[in-house]
Amino acid sequence: MQSSKIPLICIVGRSNTGKTTLIENLIPELKKRGFKIGTVKHSVHGFDLDREGKDSYRHKKAGASFVLISSPQKIALIKDIEREYTLDEIKERFIENVDLVLAEGFKSSSYPKIEVLRKDLWDELLCSEEDNLVAVVSDKRLELSVPVFNTEQISELADFIIEKFLKILKE
Amino acid sequence: MQSSKIPLICIVGRSNTGKTTLIENLIPELKKRGFKIGTVKHSVHGFDLDREGKDSYRHKKAGASFVLISSPQKIALIKDIEREYTLDEIKERFIENVDLVLAEGFKSSSYPKIEVLRKDLWDELLCSEEDNLVAVVSDKRLELSVPVFNTEQISELADFIIEKFLKILKE
Repeated sequence: MQSSKIPLICIVGRSNTGKTTLIENLIPELKKRGFKIGTVKHSVHGFDLDREGKDSYRHKKAGASFVLISSPQKIALIKDIEREYTLDEIKERFIENVDLVLAEGFKSSSYPKIEVLRKDLWDELLCSEEDNLVAVVSDKRLELSVPVFNTEQISELADFIIEKFLKILKE
Repeated sequence: MQSSKIPLICIVGRSNTGKTTLIENLIPELKKRGFKIGTVKHSVHGFDLDREGKDSYRHKKAGASFVLISSPQKIALIKDIEREYTLDEIKERFIENVDLVLAEGFKSSSYPKIEVLRKDLWDELLCSEEDNLVAVVSDKRLELSVPVFNTEQISELADFIIEKFLKILKE
């Protein structure tokens, strides 16, 4: 599928509300139903993916602008950039061969959002329908104009995502 | 520069001959002269770049077909593939914004090659001029039809690479 047509949903929420856990649970549920999922993770403070001592780490440390590691099953690219890519740029340049992208974070983007809200941590949602909020996952009982799922309702949330974003593929 | 026009040199040689060390030494030497270098590393047995416990690791482990990590300075993509990419495919899909690519391995490719040969390990070269061998780096004294550099002659080897592959950029 053309990258521009692959649906992308941002999983947003304050720190430690369970965004990663939700993504971890959603992926196998959606895979089980035949969909291929890619993920995008935003890292404010940078990251150090590679392991000290590895050849690729040594290349990067010596000053390579990018290091690409190619194996029969996987490919990895670590690349310096001059400014942070937008989600649109990421979609256009890097994303292919999946049915859906789940992005963790990116709450300021215009993409559809599912917000995770934890009762004991915060009272208010970060996003509203104006921010393209399409659903909320919470352990709170909430009355909202968008569907609310609890953290156990992964199958129901997957149904909702498929109905709303992947129906065209399913038919 | 268009990816198809970026020169690519394979650094080949048997195991433990010092291919990574040569690349580590060449990168800063070429950078010092104003060239941007990318590297490609072949990994037969796959790799596990990401660190256990990290969000991106959790996404991948849950079954994501790819994980992309975006930060202000760097981007990383780890992607499942169905068959190993050729160097041509790697160039076309992933390589941009550098002046030269150094690939570690890929001795069967048709790209120009610099072979590293260590006296105490092996007697014979893996590649010949028919394989597009353009230079040899060795601690042996060798009489060959291609230039031979010793492992200390990084500056001379950089001169040779610039003259042969990057001259058009230098002028």
